[in-house]
Amino acid sequence: MKLYIWALAPNPRRAKIYVAEKGIDIEVIDAGNPDTPALADWYVDRFPHRRVPILELDDGDWIGEAPAICRYLEAQFPDPPLLMGRDSKEIALVEMWDRIAEWEGLIAVSEVFRNTHKAFVGRGLAGYDRDIPQIPELAERGSFRLGLFYDKLNEQLADKEFVVGDAFTLADITALCAIDFAIFRKLPIPESCPNVIRWHEAVSARPSTK
Amino acid sequence: MKLYIWALAPNPRRAKIYVAEKGIDIEVIDAGNPDTPALADWYVDRFPHRRVPILELDDGDWIGEAPAICRYLEAQFPDPPLLMGRDSKEIALVEMWDRIAEWEGLIAVSEVFRNTHKAFVGRGLAGYDRDIPQIPELAERGSFRLGLFYDKLNEQLADKEFVVGDAFTLADITALCAIDFAIFRKLPIPESCPNVIRWHEAVSARPSTK
Repeated sequence: MKLYIWALAPNPRRAKIYVAEKGIDIEVIDAGNPDTPALADWYVDRFPHRRVPILELDDGDWIGEAPAICRYLEAQFPDPPLLMGRDSKEIALVEMWDRIAEWEGLIAVSEVFRNTHKAFVGRGLAGYDRDIPQIPELAERGSFRLGLFYDKLNEQLADKEFVVGDAFTLADITALCAIDFAIFRKLPIPESCPNVIRWHEAVSARPSTK
Repeated sequence: MKLYIWALAPNPRRAKIYVAEKGIDIEVIDAGNPDTPALADWYVDRFPHRRVPILELDDGDWIGEAPAICRYLEAQFPDPPLLMGRDSKEIALVEMWDRIAEWEGLIAVSEVFRNTHKAFVGRGLAGYDRDIPQIPELAERGSFRLGLFYDKLNEQLADKEFVVGDAFTLADITALCAIDFAIFRKLPIPESCPNVIRWHEAVSARPSTK
Protein backbone atom coordinates (compact mmCIF):
# COMPACT_ATOMS: atom_id res chain seq x y z
CA MET A 1 0.00 0.00 0.00
CA LYS A 2 1.02 3.60 -0.61
CA LEU A 3 -0.39 6.70 1.06
CA TYR A 4 -0.31 9.84 -1.06
CA ILE A 5 -0.35 13.13 0.82
CA TRP A 6 0.58 16.75 0.23
CA ALA A 7 2.88 17.85 3.02
CA LEU A 8 1.53 21.42 2.98
CA ALA A 9 -2.16 20.54 3.21
CA PRO A 10 -4.28 19.93 6.32
CA ASN A 11 -6.64 17.29 4.95
CA PRO A 12 -4.08 14.56 4.13
CA ARG A 13 -2.47 15.28 7.48
CA ARG A 14 -5.50 13.54 9.03
CA ALA A 15 -4.47 10.24 7.41
CA LYS A 16 -0.78 10.85 8.18
CA ILE A 17 -1.44 11.34 11.90
CA TYR A 18 -3.76 8.32 11.93
CA VAL A 19 -1.04 6.13 10.40
CA ALA A 20 1.57 7.46 12.86
CA GLU A 21 -0.76 6.85 15.85
CA LYS A 22 -1.36 3.28 14.76
CA GLY A 23 2.31 2.68 13.99
CA ILE A 24 1.43 1.39 10.51
CA ASP A 25 4.49 0.88 8.32
CA ILE A 26 3.41 2.30 4.99
CA GLU A 27 5.12 4.16 2.16
CA VAL A 28 4.07 7.83 2.30
CA ILE A 29 4.49 9.80 -0.93
CA ASP A 30 4.24 13.58 -1.19
CA ALA A 31 2.13 14.41 -4.24
CA GLY A 32 2.79 18.13 -3.99
CA ASN A 33 4.42 20.06 -6.78
CA PRO A 34 7.88 21.16 -5.64
CA ASP A 35 7.66 24.54 -7.41
CA THR A 36 4.09 25.80 -7.03
CA PRO A 37 1.45 25.26 -4.32
CA ALA A 38 -0.47 22.61 -6.25
CA LEU A 39 -0.68 18.86 -6.64
CA ALA A 40 1.85 17.43 -9.11
CA ASP A 41 0.71 16.74 -12.68
CA TRP A 42 1.61 13.05 -12.46
CA TYR A 43 -0.73 12.75 -9.47
CA VAL A 44 -3.83 14.40 -10.91
CA ASP A 45 -3.30 12.56 -14.21
CA ARG A 46 -3.26 9.28 -12.34
CA PHE A 47 -5.99 9.89 -9.80
CA PRO A 48 -9.08 11.62 -11.23
CA HIS A 49 -10.21 12.28 -7.65
CA ARG A 50 -7.66 15.15 -7.77
CA ARG A 51 -7.47 15.33 -3.98
CA VAL A 52 -5.24 14.09 -1.20
CA PRO A 53 -5.02 11.80 0.66
CA ILE A 54 -5.36 8.70 -1.49
CA LEU A 55 -4.50 5.18 -0.40
CA GLU A 56 -3.31 2.95 -3.22
CA LEU A 57 -3.85 -0.74 -2.54
CA ASP A 58 -1.56 -3.54 -3.63
CA ASP A 59 -4.11 -4.65 -6.24
CA GLY A 60 -3.91 -1.21 -7.89
CA ASP A 61 -7.30 0.02 -6.68
CA TRP A 62 -7.36 3.20 -4.65
CA ILE A 63 -9.42 4.81 -1.93
CA GLY A 64 -9.89 8.57 -1.58
CA GLU A 65 -11.18 10.69 1.32
CA ALA A 66 -9.40 10.69 4.68
CA PRO A 67 -12.12 9.06 6.83
CA ALA A 68 -12.66 6.27 4.28
CA ILE A 69 -8.91 5.60 4.22
CA CYS A 70 -8.72 5.50 8.01
CA ARG A 71 -11.71 3.15 8.21
CA TYR A 72 -10.09 0.81 5.69
CA LEU A 73 -6.78 0.82 7.56
CA GLU A 74 -8.63 0.26 10.86
CA ALA A 75 -10.07 -2.95 9.41
CA GLN A 76 -6.59 -4.11 8.39
CA PHE A 77 -4.89 -3.05 11.64
CA PRO A 78 -7.58 -3.21 14.34
CA ASP A 79 -5.29 -3.01 17.38
CA PRO A 80 -5.44 -0.83 19.36
CA PRO A 81 -9.09 -0.09 18.52
CA LEU A 82 -9.22 3.49 19.80
CA LEU A 83 -9.03 5.94 16.94
CA MET A 84 -12.27 5.01 15.15
CA GLY A 85 -14.24 4.07 18.29
CA ARG A 86 -14.46 0.91 20.40
CA ASP A 87 -18.14 0.00 20.04
CA SER A 88 -20.95 0.88 17.64
CA LYS A 89 -22.07 3.94 19.60
CA GLU A 90 -18.56 5.33 19.97
CA ILE A 91 -17.85 4.59 16.30
CA ALA A 92 -20.92 6.65 15.37
CA LEU A 93 -19.97 9.50 17.72
CA VAL A 94 -16.42 9.58 16.32
CA GLU A 95 -17.85 9.80 12.81
CA MET A 96 -20.29 12.53 13.84
CA TRP A 97 -17.61 14.64 15.53
CA ASP A 98 -15.11 13.99 12.76
CA ARG A 99 -17.69 15.37 10.34
CA ILE A 100 -18.40 18.39 12.57
CA ALA A 101 -14.67 19.11 12.87
CA GLU A 102 -14.35 18.80 9.11
CA TRP A 103 -17.41 20.79 8.05
CA GLU A 104 -17.45 23.49 10.72
CA GLY A 105 -13.68 23.63 11.29
CA LEU A 106 -11.49 22.41 8.45
CA ILE A 107 -13.75 23.48 5.61
CA ALA A 108 -14.43 26.82 7.28
CA VAL A 109 -10.69 27.60 7.45
CA SER A 110 -10.24 26.32 3.90
CA GLU A 111 -12.95 28.75 2.79
CA VAL A 112 -10.90 31.58 4.28
CA PHE A 113 -7.59 30.35 2.88
CA ARG A 114 -8.65 29.41 -0.64
CA ASN A 115 -10.76 32.51 -1.18
CA THR A 116 -8.13 35.03 -0.07
CA HIS A 117 -4.67 33.64 -0.94
CA LYS A 118 -3.05 35.11 -4.05
CA ALA A 119 -1.64 31.74 -5.06
CA PHE A 120 -5.17 30.30 -5.29
CA VAL A 121 -6.81 32.82 -7.59
CA GLY A 122 -9.06 30.75 -9.88
CA ARG A 123 -8.65 27.77 -7.55
CA GLY A 124 -11.20 28.58 -4.86
CA LEU A 125 -11.92 24.92 -4.23
CA ALA A 126 -9.70 21.83 -4.17
CA GLY A 127 -10.32 18.87 -6.44
CA TYR A 128 -11.48 20.60 -9.61
CA ASP A 129 -9.66 20.96 -12.92
CA ARG A 130 -11.73 24.00 -13.94
CA ASP A 131 -11.53 27.62 -12.95
CA ILE A 132 -13.26 28.12 -9.59
CA PRO A 133 -13.33 31.86 -8.83
CA GLN A 134 -12.52 33.08 -5.35
CA ILE A 135 -15.55 34.41 -3.42
CA PRO A 136 -14.52 37.02 -0.82
CA GLU A 137 -17.89 36.68 1.00
CA LEU A 138 -17.21 32.98 1.45
CA ALA A 139 -13.92 33.79 3.17
CA GLU A 140 -15.81 36.09 5.54
CA ARG A 141 -18.40 33.41 6.19
CA GLY A 142 -15.66 30.85 6.84
CA SER A 143 -14.02 33.08 9.42
CA PHE A 144 -17.36 33.59 11.15
CA ARG A 145 -18.10 29.86 11.12
CA LEU A 146 -14.66 29.06 12.53
CA GLY A 147 -15.40 31.30 15.53
CA LEU A 148 -18.59 29.35 16.21
CA PHE A 149 -16.66 26.08 15.84
CA TYR A 150 -14.16 27.19 18.47
CA ASP A 151 -17.08 27.92 20.82
CA LYS A 152 -18.78 24.58 20.10
CA LEU A 153 -15.55 22.66 20.65
CA ASN A 154 -14.88 24.59 23.85
CA GLU A 155 -18.27 23.53 25.19
CA GLN A 156 -17.79 19.91 24.10
CA LEU A 157 -14.39 19.76 25.85
CA ALA A 158 -15.71 21.24 29.11
CA ASP A 159 -16.12 17.80 30.70
CA LYS A 160 -14.10 15.63 28.33
CA GLU A 161 -10.39 14.99 27.89
CA PHE A 162 -10.82 14.44 24.15
CA VAL A 163 -13.48 15.42 21.63
CA VAL A 164 -15.63 12.31 22.00
CA GLY A 165 -14.62 11.17 25.49
CA ASP A 166 -11.67 9.53 27.22
CA ALA A 167 -9.82 8.36 24.11
CA PHE A 168 -7.94 10.23 21.37
CA THR A 169 -9.82 9.54 18.12
CA LEU A 170 -10.06 10.60 14.49
CA ALA A 171 -12.32 13.44 15.65
CA ASP A 172 -9.39 14.89 17.63
CA ILE A 173 -7.10 14.43 14.64
CA THR A 174 -9.45 16.34 12.33
CA ALA A 175 -10.06 19.09 14.90
CA LEU A 176 -6.29 19.43 15.37
CA CYS A 177 -5.65 19.63 11.61
CA ALA A 178 -8.37 22.28 11.32
CA ILE A 179 -7.05 24.36 14.20
CA ASP A 180 -3.38 24.15 13.22
CA PHE A 181 -4.42 25.28 9.74
CA ALA A 182 -6.38 28.14 11.34
CA ILE A 183 -3.36 29.14 13.44
CA PHE A 184 -1.21 29.10 10.28
CA ARG A 185 -3.84 31.34 8.64
CA LYS A 186 -3.61 33.70 11.66
CA LEU A 187 -6.99 32.69 13.09
CA PRO A 188 -5.77 31.42 16.48
CA ILE A 189 -7.80 29.87 19.30
CA PRO A 190 -9.58 32.71 21.14
CA GLU A 191 -8.70 33.22 24.81
CA SER A 192 -12.41 32.76 25.52
CA CYS A 193 -11.95 29.04 24.71
CA PRO A 194 -9.70 27.74 27.52
CA ASN A 195 -10.81 24.12 27.07
CA VAL A 196 -9.71 24.19 23.45
CA ILE A 197 -6.36 25.74 24.46
CA ARG A 198 -5.81 23.01 27.10
CA TRP A 199 -6.81 20.25 24.66
CA HIS A 200 -4.67 21.71 21.86
CA GLU A 201 -1.57 21.73 24.07
CA ALA A 202 -2.20 18.13 25.08
CA VAL A 203 -2.81 16.69 21.62
CA SER A 204 0.01 18.73 20.07
CA ALA A 205 2.43 16.96 22.45
CA ARG A 206 1.68 13.59 20.83
CA PRO A 207 4.61 12.42 18.66
CA SER A 208 2.19 11.52 15.84
CA THR A 209 1.33 15.18 15.29
CA LYS A 210 4.88 16.41 14.72
CA MET B 1 -34.83 4.56 19.15
CA LYS B 2 -36.34 7.52 17.33
CA LEU B 3 -35.27 8.95 14.00
CA TYR B 4 -35.86 12.67 13.56
CA ILE B 5 -36.14 13.91 9.99
CA TRP B 6 -37.55 16.89 8.14
CA ALA B 7 -39.84 15.61 5.42
CA LEU B 8 -38.97 18.49 3.06
CA ALA B 9 -35.18 18.16 3.29
CA PRO B 10 -32.86 15.95 1.22
CA ASN B 11 -30.25 15.17 3.86
CA PRO B 12 -32.47 13.33 6.38
CA ARG B 13 -34.00 11.48 3.43
CA ARG B 14 -30.69 9.58 3.26
CA ALA B 15 -31.39 8.01 6.66
CA LYS B 16 -35.07 7.50 5.87
CA ILE B 17 -34.31 5.54 2.69
CA TYR B 18 -31.61 3.55 4.51
CA VAL B 19 -34.11 2.55 7.22
CA ALA B 20 -36.74 1.60 4.61
CA GLU B 21 -34.22 -0.48 2.63
CA LYS B 22 -33.21 -2.38 5.76
CA GLY B 23 -36.81 -2.78 6.89
CA ILE B 24 -35.96 -1.39 10.33
CA ASP B 25 -39.03 -0.76 12.46
CA ILE B 26 -38.30 2.61 14.03
CA GLU B 27 -40.35 5.62 15.04
CA VAL B 28 -39.78 8.42 12.51
CA ILE B 29 -40.60 11.94 13.71
CA ASP B 30 -40.86 14.98 11.44
CA ALA B 31 -39.01 17.85 13.14
CA GLY B 32 -40.11 20.41 10.56
CA ASN B 33 -42.13 23.44 11.54
CA PRO B 34 -45.66 23.08 10.12
CA ASP B 35 -45.93 26.79 9.26
CA THR B 36 -42.53 27.95 7.98
CA PRO B 37 -39.74 26.13 6.14
CA ALA B 38 -37.57 25.63 9.23
CA LEU B 39 -36.91 23.10 11.96
CA ALA B 40 -39.34 23.31 14.88
CA ASP B 41 -38.29 25.25 18.00
CA TRP B 42 -38.69 22.22 20.26
CA TYR B 43 -36.20 20.35 18.06
CA VAL B 44 -33.41 22.92 17.94
CA ASP B 45 -33.86 23.60 21.65
CA ARG B 46 -33.40 19.93 22.38
CA PHE B 47 -30.63 19.09 19.90
CA PRO B 48 -27.86 21.70 19.73
CA HIS B 49 -26.67 20.03 16.52
CA ARG B 50 -29.57 21.93 14.88
CA ARG B 51 -29.59 19.59 11.89
CA VAL B 52 -31.51 16.57 10.69
CA PRO B 53 -31.35 13.61 10.76
CA ILE B 54 -30.73 12.73 14.39
CA LEU B 55 -31.07 9.27 15.89
CA GLU B 56 -32.10 9.27 19.54
CA LEU B 57 -31.07 6.13 21.39
CA ASP B 58 -33.04 4.44 24.14
CA ASP B 59 -30.49 5.64 26.71
CA GLY B 60 -31.21 9.27 25.75
CA ASP B 61 -27.94 9.83 23.87
CA TRP B 62 -28.20 10.91 20.27
CA ILE B 63 -26.21 10.62 17.05
CA GLY B 64 -26.21 13.26 14.34
CA GLU B 65 -25.08 13.14 10.70
CA ALA B 66 -26.68 10.74 8.23
CA PRO B 67 -23.67 8.47 7.51
CA ALA B 68 -22.90 8.10 11.24
CA ILE B 69 -26.54 7.15 11.90
CA CYS B 70 -26.54 4.60 9.09
CA ARG B 71 -23.26 3.08 10.31
CA TYR B 72 -24.69 2.76 13.82
CA LEU B 73 -27.87 1.12 12.55
CA GLU B 74 -25.81 -1.18 10.32
CA ALA B 75 -24.03 -2.47 13.43
CA GLN B 76 -27.40 -3.13 15.14
CA PHE B 77 -29.06 -4.65 12.06
CA PRO B 78 -26.24 -6.18 9.98
CA ASP B 79 -28.40 -8.30 7.66
CA PRO B 80 -28.43 -7.94 4.74
CA PRO B 81 -24.95 -6.35 4.71
CA LEU B 82 -25.20 -4.50 1.42
CA LEU B 83 -25.85 -0.82 2.01
CA MET B 84 -22.61 0.05 3.81
CA GLY B 85 -20.37 -2.42 1.94
CA ARG B 86 -19.67 -6.13 2.38
CA ASP B 87 -15.92 -6.12 3.06
CA SER B 88 -13.37 -3.55 4.18
CA LYS B 89 -12.55 -2.38 0.67
CA GLU B 90 -16.19 -2.03 -0.36
CA ILE B 91 -16.99 -0.30 2.94
CA ALA B 92 -14.25 2.25 2.16
CA LEU B 93 -15.45 2.74 -1.42
CA VAL B 94 -19.02 3.25 -0.25
CA GLU B 95 -17.80 5.88 2.22
CA MET B 96 -15.68 7.58 -0.47
CA TRP B 97 -18.54 7.73 -2.98
CA ASP B 98 -21.06 8.71 -0.33
CA ARG B 99 -18.79 11.65 0.49
CA ILE B 100 -18.37 12.55 -3.19
CA ALA B 101 -22.14 12.42 -3.72
CA GLU B 102 -22.61 14.59 -0.64
CA TRP B 103 -19.88 17.15 -1.26
CA GLU B 104 -20.06 17.45 -5.05
CA GLY B 105 -23.78 16.71 -5.39
CA LEU B 106 -25.93 17.35 -2.35
CA ILE B 107 -23.96 20.29 -0.98
CA ALA B 108 -23.63 21.81 -4.46
CA VAL B 109 -27.43 21.79 -4.91
CA SER B 110 -27.88 23.09 -1.36
CA GLU B 111 -25.55 25.96 -2.22
CA VAL B 112 -27.88 26.87 -5.08
CA PHE B 113 -31.07 26.42 -3.08
CA ARG B 114 -30.07 28.13 0.15
CA ASN B 115 -28.40 31.08 -1.55
CA THR B 116 -31.27 31.91 -3.90
CA HIS B 117 -34.57 31.00 -2.18
CA LYS B 118 -36.50 33.92 -0.69
CA ALA B 119 -37.52 31.86 2.35
CA PHE B 120 -33.85 31.37 3.27
CA VAL B 121 -32.66 34.98 3.32
CA GLY B 122 -30.28 35.19 6.28
CA ARG B 123 -30.19 31.38 6.48
CA GLY B 124 -27.64 30.58 3.79
CA LEU B 125 -26.42 27.52 5.65
CA ALA B 126 -28.23 24.88 7.72
CA GLY B 127 -27.33 24.22 11.33
CA TYR B 128 -26.57 27.72 12.56
CA ASP B 129 -28.58 29.89 14.93
CA ARG B 130 -26.97 33.10 13.64
CA ASP B 131 -27.59 35.15 10.54
CA ILE B 132 -25.77 33.56 7.58
CA PRO B 133 -26.13 35.89 4.57
CA GLN B 134 -26.93 34.43 1.17
CA ILE B 135 -24.02 34.56 -1.29
CA PRO B 136 -25.22 34.71 -4.91
CA GLU B 137 -21.76 33.71 -6.23
CA LEU B 138 -21.95 30.55 -4.14
CA ALA B 139 -25.23 29.62 -5.82
CA GLU B 140 -23.53 30.07 -9.20
CA ARG B 141 -20.60 27.95 -8.08
CA GLY B 142 -22.95 25.27 -6.79
CA SER B 143 -24.73 25.06 -10.11
CA PHE B 144 -21.40 24.75 -11.92
CA ARG B 145 -20.21 22.05 -9.51
CA LEU B 146 -23.45 20.11 -9.90
CA GLY B 147 -22.86 19.94 -13.66
CA LEU B 148 -19.43 18.44 -13.07
CA PHE B 149 -20.93 15.97 -10.57
CA TYR B 150 -23.42 14.78 -13.18
CA ASP B 151 -20.50 14.19 -15.57
CA LYS B 152 -18.43 12.37 -12.95
CA LEU B 153 -21.35 10.15 -11.96
CA ASN B 154 -22.11 9.44 -15.61
CA GLU B 155 -18.54 8.22 -16.10
CA GLN B 156 -18.63 6.15 -12.91
CA LEU B 157 -21.88 4.47 -13.98
CA ALA B 158 -20.62 3.63 -17.48
CA ASP B 159 -19.71 0.07 -16.47
CA LYS B 160 -21.55 -0.28 -13.17
CA GLU B 161 -25.16 -0.96 -12.24
CA PHE B 162 -24.84 1.10 -9.08
CA VAL B 163 -22.44 3.82 -7.92
CA VAL B 164 -19.89 1.52 -6.29
CA GLY B 165 -20.58 -1.72 -8.16
CA ASP B 166 -23.21 -4.44 -8.26
CA ALA B 167 -25.04 -3.54 -5.04
CA PHE B 168 -27.27 -0.62 -4.09
CA THR B 169 -25.48 1.22 -1.26
CA LEU B 170 -25.55 4.40 0.80
CA ALA B 171 -23.62 6.07 -2.04
CA ASP B 172 -26.62 5.49 -4.34
CA ILE B 173 -28.97 6.80 -1.66
CA THR B 174 -26.99 10.02 -1.26
CA ALA B 175 -26.61 10.51 -5.01
CA LEU B 176 -30.38 9.97 -5.42
CA CYS B 177 -31.22 12.47 -2.67
CA ALA B 178 -28.86 14.99 -4.29
CA ILE B 179 -30.30 14.52 -7.77
CA ASP B 180 -33.95 14.53 -6.71
CA PHE B 181 -33.23 17.76 -4.86
CA ALA B 182 -31.58 19.13 -8.00
CA ILE B 183 -34.60 18.13 -10.12
CA PHE B 184 -36.88 19.86 -7.58
CA ARG B 185 -34.65 22.95 -7.92
CA LYS B 186 -35.01 22.75 -11.74
CA LEU B 187 -31.48 21.49 -12.32
CA PRO B 188 -32.36 18.19 -14.01
CA ILE B 189 -30.03 15.46 -15.24
CA PRO B 190 -28.53 16.61 -18.56
CA GLU B 191 -29.28 14.51 -21.63
CA SER B 192 -25.52 14.18 -22.05
CA CYS B 193 -25.54 11.84 -19.02
CA PRO B 194 -27.49 8.76 -20.20
CA ASN B 195 -25.93 6.49 -17.56
CA VAL B 196 -27.22 8.75 -14.80
CA ILE B 197 -30.67 8.83 -16.41
CA ARG B 198 -30.74 5.00 -16.63
CA TRP B 199 -29.52 4.63 -13.03
CA HIS B 200 -31.95 7.28 -11.75
CA GLU B 201 -34.92 5.46 -13.30
CA ALA B 202 -33.81 2.17 -11.77
CA VAL B 203 -33.18 3.41 -8.22
CA SER B 204 -36.32 5.60 -8.25
CA ALA B 205 -38.37 2.43 -8.77
CA ARG B 206 -37.28 1.03 -5.41
CA PRO B 207 -40.13 1.20 -2.86
CA SER B 208 -37.73 2.65 -0.25
CA THR B 209 -37.38 5.87 -2.26
CA LYS B 210 -41.10 6.71 -2.43
